[in-house]
Amino acid sequence: MNYKVIDNNDIEILKSICPDRVYTGEEISEDFSHDELGGVKRMPDVLVEVLSTEEVSKIMKYAFENNIPVVARGSGTGLVGSSVPLHGGIMINLTKMNRILELDEENLTLTVEPGVLLMEIGKFVEEHDLFYPPDPGEKSATIGGNINTNAGGMRAVKYGVTRDYVRGLEVVLPNGEILNVGGKVVKNSSGYSIKDLICGSEGTLGIVTKAILKLLPLPKKAVSLLVPFPNLNKAIGTVPKIIKSKSIPTAIEFMEREVILSAEEFLGKKFPDNSADAYLLLTFDGNSTQEVEAAYEKVANICLEEGALDVYISDTDERKESIWSARGAFLEAIKASTTEMDECDVVVPRNKVAEFVEYTHKLQEEFNIRIRSFGHAGDGNLHIYVLKDDLTEDVWKKKLNDVFDCMYKKSRELNGLVSGEHGIGFAKKPYLFEQYSEEYITLMKNIKLAFDPKNILNPGKVCQ
Amino acid sequence: MNYKVIDNNDIEILKSICPDRVYTGEEISEDFSHDELGGVKRMPDVLVEVLSTEEVSKIMKYAFENNIPVVARGSGTGLVGSSVPLHGGIMINLTKMNRILELDEENLTLTVEPGVLLMEIGKFVEEHDLFYPPDPGEKSATIGGNINTNAGGMRAVKYGVTRDYVRGLEVVLPNGEILNVGGKVVKNSSGYSIKDLICGSEGTLGIVTKAILKLLPLPKKAVSLLVPFPNLNKAIGTVPKIIKSKSIPTAIEFMEREVILSAEEFLGKKFPDNSADAYLLLTFDGNSTQEVEAAYEKVANICLEEGALDVYISDTDERKESIWSARGAFLEAIKASTTEMDECDVVVPRNKVAEFVEYTHKLQEEFNIRIRSFGHAGDGNLHIYVLKDDLTEDVWKKKLNDVFDCMYKKSRELNGLVSGEHGIGFAKKPYLFEQYSEEYITLMKNIKLAFDPKNILNPGKVCQ
Repeated sequence: MNYKVIDNNDIEILKSICPDRVYTGEEISEDFSHDELGGVKRMPDVLVEVLSTEEVSKIMKYAFENNIPVVARGSGTGLVGSSVPLHGGIMINLTKMNRILELDEENLTLTVEPGVLLMEIGKFVEEHDLFYPPDPGEKSATIGGNINTNAGGMRAVKYGVTRDYVRGLEVVLPNGEILNVGGKVVKNSSGYSIKDLICGSEGTLGIVTKAILKLLPLPKKAVSLLVPFPNLNKAIGTVPKIIKSKSIPTAIEFMEREVILSAEEFLGKKFPDNSADAYLLLTFDGNSTQEVEAAYEKVANICLEEGALDVYISDTDERKESIWSARGAFLEAIKASTTEMDECDVVVPRNKVAEFVEYTHKLQEEFNIRIRSFGHAGDGNLHIYVLKDDLTEDVWKKKLNDVFDCMYKKSRELNGLVSGEHGIGFAKKPYLFEQYSEEYITLMKNIKLAFDPKNILNPGKVCQ
Repeated sequence: MNYKVIDNNDIEILKSICPDRVYTGEEISEDFSHDELGGVKRMPDVLVEVLSTEEVSKIMKYAFENNIPVVARGSGTGLVGSSVPLHGGIMINLTKMNRILELDEENLTLTVEPGVLLMEIGKFVEEHDLFYPPDPGEKSATIGGNINTNAGGMRAVKYGVTRDYVRGLEVVLPNGEILNVGGKVVKNSSGYSIKDLICGSEGTLGIVTKAILKLLPLPKKAVSLLVPFPNLNKAIGTVPKIIKSKSIPTAIEFMEREVILSAEEFLGKKFPDNSADAYLLLTFDGNSTQEVEAAYEKVANICLEEGALDVYISDTDERKESIWSARGAFLEAIKASTTEMDECDVVVPRNKVAEFVEYTHKLQEEFNIRIRSFGHAGDGNLHIYVLKDDLTEDVWKKKLNDVFDCMYKKSRELNGLVSGEHGIGFAKKPYLFEQYSEEYITLMKNIKLAFDPKNILNPGKVCQ
């Protein structure tokens, strides 16, 4: 690709669009060169902080006419390099477009700008006795980022993923045109679902500048169960039996002792129990104590029949908080325990989770490298971290590569897919290309071209 | 478009792919020239009944190489001409690919061929104490057709639409390649969501040859409420108050006395009540009597506060059946009451439904033409029928055109969209083109080209 190199004239024009919010050179923090895992780095040539859709549109029009690459960025909490400006150019920082625009209680929708944080949405709607179900662990992510990865989070077992809660989007296309797709409507069969294509497209097809989210009434009652098991296999093996019993917990997470110990150390707080090798953490929600009790008692009995050592019931906010704050800190805790890491976010059919995690245990021994995992046992989405520790750079790269090759191969064998919720970005492209046929990749490239014929928006990501 | 005209050689090749299942000329029933409303007609040049994905793939490869248009067809219950072969060519009849392939109780999925009927899926999964929530009125539609219109049906208020229950698809592309998108997995962020693009694409992007559907546990208890109101405005005006009260009924339908009378006559059976001008019909489901009672009692009280004349509770299968079978017959009953009709399937934000239906009453008087409506008050999706009765062909065409222009204009004013669940097909293209900007339509055309560069699959539909 032959992109135009940013010059002073471009900077001046960007300054005329966004006065006082255009940054270059050392004015740009190094943070903008990478995301949360930092595996790939590059500084943008110019960083522009936008405040409105019109500004985004003007920037894109200019970039399109002048063949300048553009990357949109939220909080930068991604894990696969989606928001890294591989070709330099313009970075659009959307974090100041962070207003909650409208709560519509008659249509149960919330209209937001892309820079609103997930934690802010949760807090705001709960104050109105409403509920935005998608619940990724990283609460400081922006909603724009969540939409672009189609993040799922912990409540996907019962409530589905981000896409299921996006009713409408305002999107700026690569040529600067503003498109409104979907709306406050519940149903829509009015042409191809561009809304669903934008969800999960990792900033490569358009820039989301507004989102209409679907809300639900806030469940009145929620209870968490922490269930210790003698080993991970028994813990995860219980999950298909829970599903088959026709219970629908809100969340089913699995965790191992090593990760809990890391979280205890990281947070300086004790977890309610750390004596067992492996745990399931479940939540149940509903509108009455009876309803929730009936659901969790059945599941508690299944766990005990399958060899659970105990069942701890947490129905106070305080107890739930102590468990879930630990769960929320797993990624940070593992990260703090090593020098560098990379992660695998495969999703497999939920009755294959145990087999996959067991396999990662074998890899840990075979390659003599630390591997930690936790994840969403209820929806088959695993988060597996390979840790560098004190390996040399060369050995680390080689081992990581070999271990990842094995993991993604195993995932394909189990009819899994490369990414459950973190996306492909830059880092997982090789595995996407292995997963899909040439025909499939060509089709994705053609879709990309349908939106972005000059390939200026977030180039080098997903299928390119 | 210059398509190749089918000749004897083509027929022979099709016969070599599907022996004894290739039909031409008078062997083809006139039924295959139109869908349920029949506004546009054309016979295919050749009809091929397929039994496998491989056959579909071979036919598409041949058609692609030879530039022959192809239309896929299920039960033909569409209402907008999506399955009419506007350019002749090959029609692929998928109704014999009608096997239920696998029920996976550990992953709660059902794998089916596209020709399985909606009523067969419902029956099959309920026998296993499971639930496929999408519930369009037309139960003799195929699942392939439902996926292609992204049909919603009556339970969308609580459960969402068809797309939400499609986890994976096997699709034959226009060039004959076979693609597997999604899978049994609950989450997926592995590249652009081609699965979601195929859903609702009305047979223009690929031919669905297999679908993996998401199931839920069957709710143990369901109750219907039939609520008479003194007028339609009061009935529909109550719906936003129900939503705002944070209740989630499974379905909220509205109906008027005239439509009930038509259904009574059509079915030769009495409806439980026909004394009021307008009704809401609600269902509630859950896992215990208490849970369901708590939900419907709250809603019943809201209805009474808003002026409902009574609340009839139906908790026996027999009573529910008598109400819902009448509801299911509305379309057929209205059709039987006139010589010809056309329908408008707009979706508006659910707090705008009353305003829209009132407007159709005004149009009925202004244009002196019979207009009947019923629909999904809970999700804002209306089904409005304009009836020809004894109008002459010219007057009918003119009035229908004028009335539709007014309705779609009104829908746009209310931030509604052209179609909630019946699609665009051929009949609603003018309104889609009015709804969206040129840029939007161009983007859809580009997406179509990404899948179908020769434009041989169901040409002349949706955005073309």
